[in-house]
Amino acid sequence: MKRKSLHIGFDADDTLWHCEDLFLEAQEKLQSLLPDRSLQEITDAVYQVEKQNLEIYGYGVKSFTLSLIEAYLALSQNVKTNEIGQLLEIGKSILESPIRIIDDVENILKNLSKIYTLLIITKGELIDQQRKIRLSKLSQYFDIIEIVAEKSADTYSQILERHKISPQNFTMIGNSIRSDIQPVLEIGGRAIHIPYKHTWRHEEECAGWSVEPHVTLKSIRSLPEWLLKTSFNINQF
Amino acid sequence: MKRKSLHIGFDADDTLWHCEDLFLEAQEKLQSLLPDRSLQEITDAVYQVEKQNLEIYGYGVKSFTLSLIEAYLALSQNVKTNEIGQLLEIGKSILESPIRIIDDVENILKNLSKIYTLLIITKGELIDQQRKIRLSKLSQYFDIIEIVAEKSADTYSQILERHKISPQNFTMIGNSIRSDIQPVLEIGGRAIHIPYKHTWRHEEECAGWSVEPHVTLKSIRSLPEWLLKTSFNINQF
Repeated sequence: MKRKSLHIGFDADDTLWHCEDLFLEAQEKLQSLLPDRSLQEITDAVYQVEKQNLEIYGYGVKSFTLSLIEAYLALSQNVKTNEIGQLLEIGKSILESPIRIIDDVENILKNLSKIYTLLIITKGELIDQQRKIRLSKLSQYFDIIEIVAEKSADTYSQILERHKISPQNFTMIGNSIRSDIQPVLEIGGRAIHIPYKHTWRHEEECAGWSVEPHVTLKSIRSLPEWLLKTSFNINQF
Repeated sequence: MKRKSLHIGFDADDTLWHCEDLFLEAQEKLQSLLPDRSLQEITDAVYQVEKQNLEIYGYGVKSFTLSLIEAYLALSQNVKTNEIGQLLEIGKSILESPIRIIDDVENILKNLSKIYTLLIITKGELIDQQRKIRLSKLSQYFDIIEIVAEKSADTYSQILERHKISPQNFTMIGNSIRSDIQPVLEIGGRAIHIPYKHTWRHEEECAGWSVEPHVTLKSIRSLPEWLLKTSFNINQF
């Protein structure tokens, strides 16, 4: 039974493919350049710099690389040319990394795309997100692909309005409470949280939010059954 | 007389507002850190690095900042912490710079928007382009705003198709032959070149292109008259 009027939005990084582990590895590499510092000190410092820069840099790998260099300058007693060169290389290696689709995702999307209208809604840098979408070969399953600078309630409203989708017919799937769950609930959509094994601290910070109850699934494998069970009577959700 | 079926696309950086001069100033600042190098050597080195990185970094200020640091590492005999800090600050100051609209642009857009459907088609980083569009307060004159990673013939085709605009009804205005003129002529649209006082070398490189004849206007001030003269009989163009 086709229910194409139901629209399922998917976050991409850490929902469709692995991503956050590369940023963790990068910080481990930074620690190997600064053996006097603990990994905790490194990740704290990088996160402080990232947070300060977020408003002007936005999200993505280039922003991260610039913040990594800034944190290194603050932490190192003895800045070395080749070490800054290594940090630039770390950034490039993330940008050139092969795509690693999360287990079973392709099969699940293939089946869901026969029943529902699927969207990718991902935040970050255009060129990097487009590269990953292209390499993933998953775009064939999606009707709509949106790359945005920030996932706010406004962003979601604009996307749904542009594509004439009612929030009541929209369910968002993602690993971030801040980006994928909270703003979608706020505009009257449904949202399903599927945590990734690592979460960037920024996505976990919920200061002052009242996160309404939302559904959490352990794995994307449980999604098709959950959708089938609930989508026939959305008002009960 | 309303001719809203005619669509006029505008490039943004160096067409609606000043931009390239900030990148030139940044390279002059880099030269002040490397007094043994001529400005020509600096701009050559930065451009070589930018070109090498273009495919993975894409366009924009963060890409430029990363390439500026990479060029500095290659050129400097004596890398200093505070100098790399200064390069990071240069990048941030570009990202935070006030918007400087090119003379008469607002008035021209205001008048043209009464007659034509106006688009912004700009390439670069989402967050930076969105900030500039917001600060410019020009978005009220535009029906469609598109931020893209690269301005290829494919990009233009996709945009026109998405908005159901026929290339015959589309005219692009911009300062770059590579990005604003050539790809639009290729898909059967019209294009008007309005050179800016500075042009980034990349936008001038036309290796292997056959740039068909196109209209060049000295200033955006001549645009309304030119459009009026030609748009009533597009087939004669």
